[in-house]
Amino acid sequence: MIAKNKNQILKSELRQDLVTGEWVVISPKRKKRPTTPFIEAHYQYKDQAECIFCDPVKSNQEKDVLIYYNKNKEWVVRVFSNKYPAFQKGNSLNKKLNGPYLAEDAVGFHEVVVSRDHDHSLPDLALEEIVAVLRAYQERYIKLMNKKFVDYILVFHNHGRTAGASVAHPHSQLIAMPFVSMDIKKEIRGAEDYFLKNQECVFCRILDQELTEKKRIIFQNEYFVAFCPFASRMGYEMWLLPKDHHPYFERLGQTEREEMARALKEVLSRLNKLLKGPDYNFYLHTSPCDGHIYSYYHWHLEILPKYSTWAGFELGTGIEINTVIPELAAEELRRIT
Amino acid sequence: MIAKNKNQILKSELRQDLVTGEWVVISPKRKKRPTTPFIEAHYQYKDQAECIFCDPVKSNQEKDVLIYYNKNKEWVVRVFSNKYPAFQKGNSLNKKLNGPYLAEDAVGFHEVVVSRDHDHSLPDLALEEIVAVLRAYQERYIKLMNKKFVDYILVFHNHGRTAGASVAHPHSQLIAMPFVSMDIKKEIRGAEDYFLKNQECVFCRILDQELTEKKRIIFQNEYFVAFCPFASRMGYEMWLLPKDHHPYFERLGQTEREEMARALKEVLSRLNKLLKGPDYNFYLHTSPCDGHIYSYYHWHLEILPKYSTWAGFELGTGIEINTVIPELAAEELRRIT
Repeated sequence: MIAKNKNQILKSELRQDLVTGEWVVISPKRKKRPTTPFIEAHYQYKDQAECIFCDPVKSNQEKDVLIYYNKNKEWVVRVFSNKYPAFQKGNSLNKKLNGPYLAEDAVGFHEVVVSRDHDHSLPDLALEEIVAVLRAYQERYIKLMNKKFVDYILVFHNHGRTAGASVAHPHSQLIAMPFVSMDIKKEIRGAEDYFLKNQECVFCRILDQELTEKKRIIFQNEYFVAFCPFASRMGYEMWLLPKDHHPYFERLGQTEREEMARALKEVLSRLNKLLKGPDYNFYLHTSPCDGHIYSYYHWHLEILPKYSTWAGFELGTGIEINTVIPELAAEELRRIT
Repeated sequence: MIAKNKNQILKSELRQDLVTGEWVVISPKRKKRPTTPFIEAHYQYKDQAECIFCDPVKSNQEKDVLIYYNKNKEWVVRVFSNKYPAFQKGNSLNKKLNGPYLAEDAVGFHEVVVSRDHDHSLPDLALEEIVAVLRAYQERYIKLMNKKFVDYILVFHNHGRTAGASVAHPHSQLIAMPFVSMDIKKEIRGAEDYFLKNQECVFCRILDQELTEKKRIIFQNEYFVAFCPFASRMGYEMWLLPKDHHPYFERLGQTEREEMARALKEVLSRLNKLLKGPDYNFYLHTSPCDGHIYSYYHWHLEILPKYSTWAGFELGTGIEINTVIPELAAEELRRIT
């Protein structure tokens, strides 16, 4: 699929996401376009006398709903309700019509998962600390999934100011919401359609292809594979998939959790080295918890570095222009050590 | 719809976009969340000895496909092919299968619309210059819409580095593409479904509601209305709609073009004053040019300032969290002069 000579490489290519049917534009030539020089001004956090997440009790955060300790009886991971929730507890959706418009209360849960160390971001933590973070995701997921009005839970992590992390101290979030969003539905339906047509999980098919072609693979261990997806929306986008077919993240076992922590540490460390500590977001896509069965779905983690800007074209059409050929991104990520 | 007391105002609300059915979270409380102080480092363009768009001939851009002159025989607006196109001319889509994956050439057109003045962005131009820019959009749209492999044309404008403008000199772009993207289809289908159900254009219904309620209106003249949409995805998002039902942007008349220029100048100037010159994107949504008839659709312009970051939650679910209540945004935009 990589073009054979320079001219072909520079030609823009449309690639279709096998799951959603969405197209992206892979346009390496645009990487070479002239730009007005500008002052490269990375947003930097200032040093802070008191970080609210270093001592959540002192800074008056909500009460912990989960806390893990290490051998020295220091806390390692703690989870509490977000004091400024996007979705909040409630007993009714309280639907309101305003002329033709519909609104309702944003009923749900919004929690913060904090690891202890202020200065070490997720991939720089010790393996057992990353395992603890993943376990906290899972434990809170299980607690929230059976609550009323919870149909979907997004577990996500924003790293760095330009990725939307308002607090510098490393943390992840869970948002439990009362419906399944259209984007999630699109992916779920894509998986269902593929299964009905091919009697096979679309993500398993992708794994087969990736493990055969090898060109987009970054890393693998016994249970997980990380690769740059064929239709990457962003330069150095990475997906982390369990090798076996698993619809439900919350059923992750202890060994798999360790392998997942290892894989996550590995690929984020490589990304950090290659792009010199970029800001990034990652999130889990797993089956909805709305009471239906999603045997055909395959949970996974998607990592999106802040490599380029989604501008007017992306906002206006929903189609991303990516200037980095996924095969070359994967090659660079494989090589760096 | 605006809550009556402070507690209610601080409660997160889900609002549904009447056209697409998408939900957004309006979460004013999150605006007050504590953030780690950071170095506010706006990306700034550096002064440049030679700007490639000040003299596109000298800087060896592609040949002009359109050029307008003023009374002094100086060029005012010129349009040429993008030297680094995301979509390029071609005679075949050249579909390629790679295992289960599908790719094809990104066939289409990618043009740049440049206004003369390096230092004055669109709202700071004289009215007749803005009219000329809009006329250039329209003329090039008409030229491209009947080309082979052109099913949709997006006209868009990126202002500022963080909005993705790689060249500082003010410019807009047209991208003509060989299919209608899923996001565009979602909007078009939403309009069609609403029409079939209600025998009315959904955008006309929105205009009725906005002109009755008045709370989200920013500006209007004889032909255009600008307002903050009920389900704004971004703080200070603005939509500009023709008051009469018009499916096709390319059929804009001379008087309407002048009124559109006036409205665009007005609302972008207000945005600049209120947010002190923010970066922003805008794009036109109009009927596809794929040979079908879209009588039920209503073209319009959407303006998205870079007010906040779409982070892990937005990327993972497609649902935006907006911390600015649209009614308050509109009030501020109305008041500022």
